[in-house]
Amino acid sequence: MSAISRIATLRDVMNHNRVDAYLVPTSDPHLSEYLPEHFKSRQWLSGFNGSAGTLVVTQSYAALWTDSRYFLQAEEELSGTGIELCKMGTPGTLSIESWLVSKLNKRSTLGFDGRLFPFSNAQATIAKLKQHKLSVNSKLDLISQIWSNRPTLPNQKAFGLELRYTGATVSDKLGAIRIELQKANATSCVLTTLDDVAWTFNIRGNDIEFNPVTLAYGYVSIDDAILFIDSSKVDASLAESLLCEGVDILPYSRAEQFYSKLAKDEVVALDPMRTNYQIFSSILKRNRIFETTSIPTLLKAKKNAVELENIRQAMIKDGVALTRFLIWLEEALVREKIDEFNVGEKIREFRSKQELFVSESFGPIVGYADHGAIVHYSATPQSAYKIEQKGFLLIDSGGQYIDGTTDITRTIHLSEPTPQEASDYTLVLKGMIQLSMAKFPSGTRGTQLDALARIAMWREGINYGHGTGHGVGAFLNVHEGPQSIRPNENPITLEPGMVQSNEPAIYRTGQYGIRIENLIACIGSFENEYGKFYQFETLTLCPIDTKAIVLEMLTPEERKWINEYHSMVYEKLASKLTAKEAKWLKKKTHAL
Amino acid sequence: MSAISRIATLRDVMNHNRVDAYLVPTSDPHLSEYLPEHFKSRQWLSGFNGSAGTLVVTQSYAALWTDSRYFLQAEEELSGTGIELCKMGTPGTLSIESWLVSKLNKRSTLGFDGRLFPFSNAQATIAKLKQHKLSVNSKLDLISQIWSNRPTLPNQKAFGLELRYTGATVSDKLGAIRIELQKANATSCVLTTLDDVAWTFNIRGNDIEFNPVTLAYGYVSIDDAILFIDSSKVDASLAESLLCEGVDILPYSRAEQFYSKLAKDEVVALDPMRTNYQIFSSILKRNRIFETTSIPTLLKAKKNAVELENIRQAMIKDGVALTRFLIWLEEALVREKIDEFNVGEKIREFRSKQELFVSESFGPIVGYADHGAIVHYSATPQSAYKIEQKGFLLIDSGGQYIDGTTDITRTIHLSEPTPQEASDYTLVLKGMIQLSMAKFPSGTRGTQLDALARIAMWREGINYGHGTGHGVGAFLNVHEGPQSIRPNENPITLEPGMVQSNEPAIYRTGQYGIRIENLIACIGSFENEYGKFYQFETLTLCPIDTKAIVLEMLTPEERKWINEYHSMVYEKLASKLTAKEAKWLKKKTHAL
Repeated sequence: MSAISRIATLRDVMNHNRVDAYLVPTSDPHLSEYLPEHFKSRQWLSGFNGSAGTLVVTQSYAALWTDSRYFLQAEEELSGTGIELCKMGTPGTLSIESWLVSKLNKRSTLGFDGRLFPFSNAQATIAKLKQHKLSVNSKLDLISQIWSNRPTLPNQKAFGLELRYTGATVSDKLGAIRIELQKANATSCVLTTLDDVAWTFNIRGNDIEFNPVTLAYGYVSIDDAILFIDSSKVDASLAESLLCEGVDILPYSRAEQFYSKLAKDEVVALDPMRTNYQIFSSILKRNRIFETTSIPTLLKAKKNAVELENIRQAMIKDGVALTRFLIWLEEALVREKIDEFNVGEKIREFRSKQELFVSESFGPIVGYADHGAIVHYSATPQSAYKIEQKGFLLIDSGGQYIDGTTDITRTIHLSEPTPQEASDYTLVLKGMIQLSMAKFPSGTRGTQLDALARIAMWREGINYGHGTGHGVGAFLNVHEGPQSIRPNENPITLEPGMVQSNEPAIYRTGQYGIRIENLIACIGSFENEYGKFYQFETLTLCPIDTKAIVLEMLTPEERKWINEYHSMVYEKLASKLTAKEAKWLKKKTHAL
Repeated sequence: MSAISRIATLRDVMNHNRVDAYLVPTSDPHLSEYLPEHFKSRQWLSGFNGSAGTLVVTQSYAALWTDSRYFLQAEEELSGTGIELCKMGTPGTLSIESWLVSKLNKRSTLGFDGRLFPFSNAQATIAKLKQHKLSVNSKLDLISQIWSNRPTLPNQKAFGLELRYTGATVSDKLGAIRIELQKANATSCVLTTLDDVAWTFNIRGNDIEFNPVTLAYGYVSIDDAILFIDSSKVDASLAESLLCEGVDILPYSRAEQFYSKLAKDEVVALDPMRTNYQIFSSILKRNRIFETTSIPTLLKAKKNAVELENIRQAMIKDGVALTRFLIWLEEALVREKIDEFNVGEKIREFRSKQELFVSESFGPIVGYADHGAIVHYSATPQSAYKIEQKGFLLIDSGGQYIDGTTDITRTIHLSEPTPQEASDYTLVLKGMIQLSMAKFPSGTRGTQLDALARIAMWREGINYGHGTGHGVGAFLNVHEGPQSIRPNENPITLEPGMVQSNEPAIYRTGQYGIRIENLIACIGSFENEYGKFYQFETLTLCPIDTKAIVLEMLTPEERKWINEYHSMVYEKLASKLTAKEAKWLKKKTHAL
């Protein structure tokens, strides 16, 4: 069945359900970044395989909005389907709301499945459409009616994560959530994102690629705690241990109804940006809501001492795997023909040999030459460039280990850098080091620090179009909130225990991309008459290519930082390596 | 009549007007920073002379909220009045709203004069009180009923500012405002802050100390422009020229009523934070409001080329005055007994000899030794320290010239700095230089740059409790919006033409304060594939004391910056000085 016939079927049921337009986003009821196959309805319907995009269908038109990462791919994959490509961020591209207003008659109705949109986004869309006399049906799941061979919901086993990895029991976490509920004068919170559920109940799973989570909902009140999960996913001992910690287990399918029938006097702490429209609205009908960043998200972000120590161990293993990979790469480049795709495979192979390895934490980004300038490039065997002994190779990859999640980028120069290549590389490195060396008072937001990673390149008229840092989970999602280090305002302050990336970059379209990324933990520094100060501990352990560094562009402090970093890398990894590997590492971490 | 008897009288009229509590803020209907005597009712009523504070009176209690700058002064001045001092920002101090809730019975009524509060603040206060079943009468001016010898409204002549200073005619400015109105789908805006009115109509005045503004309101619609001002303040030629530019003149007292009776189909662009509650509410009753940062405020912030060139000229004169002052200071310290108060007087004396000088732009802050650590210290003949030949002297002062407004801080060491003094001084200087050297892409907010001025001291565990930069007017208020460079989020982006201060500092309580402040203009820098970049031009011209600089703490770039700055200072000032003065300046601006 082609996109054309699927959309025709959709139009039939739209007619039947009296809606004139229907929205199909890339989302699931948990608002996950990576989707189970069951929820890839936008992909199934349109034939477009990118990881982001929203399809809008009316009786006469169909259009798909996606961002610049996918313009080329979407053009190819949508060709012949009759679906118009709307390039987000391009001048002249209408917003979905404006497009709908232009295509629909007054008093038309837009339908969508409210479970697939964050409350705040859906609310804004509805408000805009109502201004233009369009009505909305937000409870319409048309996909289930037309997707005949739809993959089932994922049903992999969940498993408990031991205390030696979590550093806190489920009871500890429920206690911490309850303290926050009381501070907010709330009586309960509902947990709808899969990583909030995983963290709170100390469970993990294999339901989604890259994210070690399991399909479940949660509920925590002052007295009760409920995990909504299919019984087939929970074996007896896990169920038993959860019960012992005061957690009731109910079927996954019961969550929505349960949320919509909370006791009327409950005050529910809810995150309007991370709770789907249907759940949020149904609670809003009966209960007072205290709008807040999700409480488990806030608690989860501040890793405890046990989690941090585990992450440090995972970093050693990751560093060993990457050292072996880099040695392989150096040799392979001389010896055999390799391409971007092989490189990604090889990194996974080296990581997979490490203890407690579970999976990659995201699809590797291996961008050689001008592919490096495509921020989210993902090589396929078809698209992969052969890697030659010249220019930059950018490698961004990460692993999920039971004891930690890693995310690292290194950019390697494969021959003699040109002056521009060397200058760009050094500017990126300076940014990464300046953020690494920062100390800052308590109460500081990531927004305030972002420019430290950029100022050196800004002064040369260069910038990068993404944030400098995202939060990273502890054997959880490689992208997690609530903190960030980016130009945009984010009111969340950086707090001890928070782990985030530090990844400035320079992209030269058509030439190369340079990105250097370490993970850094926020930790205590001073306490004096000026208050409390924090600093960063660099967690990632892997040599940084020194070939393209222009030494004269580094300050003495920056030079000291890289030398100290390299001697730490050698010290922590050498004993895990063979003598030959250690010798290679010694050379790569030699003081500048 | 004492504070006690005045408050007793207030309580009588409160009774009469059936309000149980009354708020007296430090404000006027234009929400000015500096008040005409007519509006100093909080001061008249309480006997407390500080520039900030809110008095709250009930039948049984009276309390005054002020900030840490005034704790000592307020304690002294309120002693014996029965007015409780509520120290803002001190643990345990209730907010005014919470205090009211604790003191009043349910269904009590709070009264205030809605013309003296920003709409957004009053709205928030009313909402909180209503939650606690308290009602509010926001149209109650009780002060007029009890203040018998109240000073009249200021009635100094207004004067037109010539095109060679404004760089744009009133018609140009009305045109620019109308373009912004149309962009916002609004039809008019009301101008309630005195500097918005002064800028729009190219008028200035002498109604308020330090701010060269005149008491007036304004109104601009697509077709009309009205200046509400007392006819006695406008001479025939000014009135004539305004009429020629399409401005109608109506009495000051007519503005409020006019605003409350706009045509019903008008959509009014209004700033809820800079428009008083009464005016905003009365418009809200009839008209649609487009909430925005005040349009004239946004336009005014971006100085045009003529204004910038004039400011550069004013800076030369200010630099000459300050050079002469610094020479005088050096000699006076050896020769005679001088104190902080004398120093402030002397600076004004030197400035007043410069062409086009009008007044100081704020009361001088001359803080010797530990007085320097009091951020807004204002020396009186009584409080003034004698200045000896040791330690730091901090001098923050500014002038109003017809061609520009200045604001400058220098901190001078009067003997041999200790290692801590030298290190602190150098950290402040590094911060000031780093911000001066910044280049940044268009779209950058001050919040993103603030840390550049702090990172060096943060890394030593030091911070300062105020912003790094405030906007500065062109022969207008020394503090103007909408941009700022501070840790707090402010969505306004820095744009070419914006002039702001750059004033990092270190305060050692009980020891000394160090602040170094220049004014800097945002100007264009690069334009390339990464977009548009901006940088700063330093406007202030005055040597920076080099005695306490630890040269080894400066990067080569920072050292180069200060040498280039000093050679520019010498180059621009020398020809305006006597040979002897120029020789002194040569020595002070010698390359490091």
